[in-house]
Amino acid sequence: MVPIVSIVGVSGSGKTTLLEKVTGELVKRGYSVGVIKHDAHDFEIDREGKDSWRHKKAGASAVIVSSPRKFALVKDVKKEWPPERLAKLLSEDVDIVVTEGYKKGPFPKIEVVRKEASSKTVSKENLIAVASDLKIKGRFKRFGLNDFKGIADLIEERFLKTRVNPEVSLTVNGKPVALKPFIEGLLKEGVTGMIKSLKGCSGAQSIELVIKR
Amino acid sequence: MVPIVSIVGVSGSGKTTLLEKVTGELVKRGYSVGVIKHDAHDFEIDREGKDSWRHKKAGASAVIVSSPRKFALVKDVKKEWPPERLAKLLSEDVDIVVTEGYKKGPFPKIEVVRKEASSKTVSKENLIAVASDLKIKGRFKRFGLNDFKGIADLIEERFLKTRVNPEVSLTVNGKPVALKPFIEGLLKEGVTGMIKSLKGCSGAQSIELVIKR
Repeated sequence: MVPIVSIVGVSGSGKTTLLEKVTGELVKRGYSVGVIKHDAHDFEIDREGKDSWRHKKAGASAVIVSSPRKFALVKDVKKEWPPERLAKLLSEDVDIVVTEGYKKGPFPKIEVVRKEASSKTVSKENLIAVASDLKIKGRFKRFGLNDFKGIADLIEERFLKTRVNPEVSLTVNGKPVALKPFIEGLLKEGVTGMIKSLKGCSGAQSIELVIKR
Repeated sequence: MVPIVSIVGVSGSGKTTLLEKVTGELVKRGYSVGVIKHDAHDFEIDREGKDSWRHKKAGASAVIVSSPRKFALVKDVKKEWPPERLAKLLSEDVDIVVTEGYKKGPFPKIEVVRKEASSKTVSKENLIAVASDLKIKGRFKRFGLNDFKGIADLIEERFLKTRVNPEVSLTVNGKPVALKPFIEGLLKEGVTGMIKSLKGCSGAQSIELVIKR
């Protein structure tokens, strides 16, 4: 199961902006990020008259538009799907899912408290960090309102560097180095490819590579 | 696996309009329909500046917006997903998937041939029907260009009434009656609910109900 972390806060606190920056930072660090945004209203993403969404209007309960580079799915549900069910749609392809909203959900939360919008946290449990321009007391990490790098560090440390049974492990100067999935994949596929091209090594399964200078 | 049928034809043949009408007709008959539209171009469904899609622009490889009544997912792919993989995202909730396009796909096809746009079929195999304002020869069923009811009949007959091991069977006047999934569900849940509320019947598993007038 892919790890899920929630960015929560009252309306106007700046969740979207913070999440946007945190996502950009995690992507820059080589992770693949999935975002789930909770929308209490009945959002409309279909463009009026757009060819592709006429089918939805015609009564289809789900419409997918698929191209060589992406696909889009709009699906009716009888009851709101919880984020963990939605996350399963992504889990093959992302390293982490960050939700916007779901303050009542069971996931670790980072709450945004902006002076203009509120003065205290609304999360009841699982609050691991607060990003605020106020001094909020509690047992959580504190970040400035715009400290997306600090929050990306926290997410990386807590959810991305603790993968169980890594297929690739790297030790540098005697110390284990945590590998981001992108780098892990690169090492695994790239190095294995190189090794396999060596004479007598085409069946290589387990590779131990030691480099000393 | 949910059945998949493709509506194909050259550009300008009227695939979208026909599919729209067929979908509406199947929905009217009680079926739940999923539509997969093939788009060779890099479609843009995000509305510029729309809050919910800023995350995609920020680098997220997948974004879901979820509300109590529907959800939307936009996901990057490295290689185009074939319809059967996309259909798996829907299979729990729809009775049939109808694709627009995929003329080279392995699914049974209904081709639209409109005089103004072309004069012959482009499907190489698995062509089960042609909707046209021309006389097209071949081993397939023929329908008028706008005969969405006839095409819905064909789809119903070929893909929707042939469910294996129905959990609910109904015989009326000595003749078996094919049940649409919606009605089947209604009978199954509704009648079972009623029967289970009867004294001594709370564990009802198999129910046989005979009504004679």
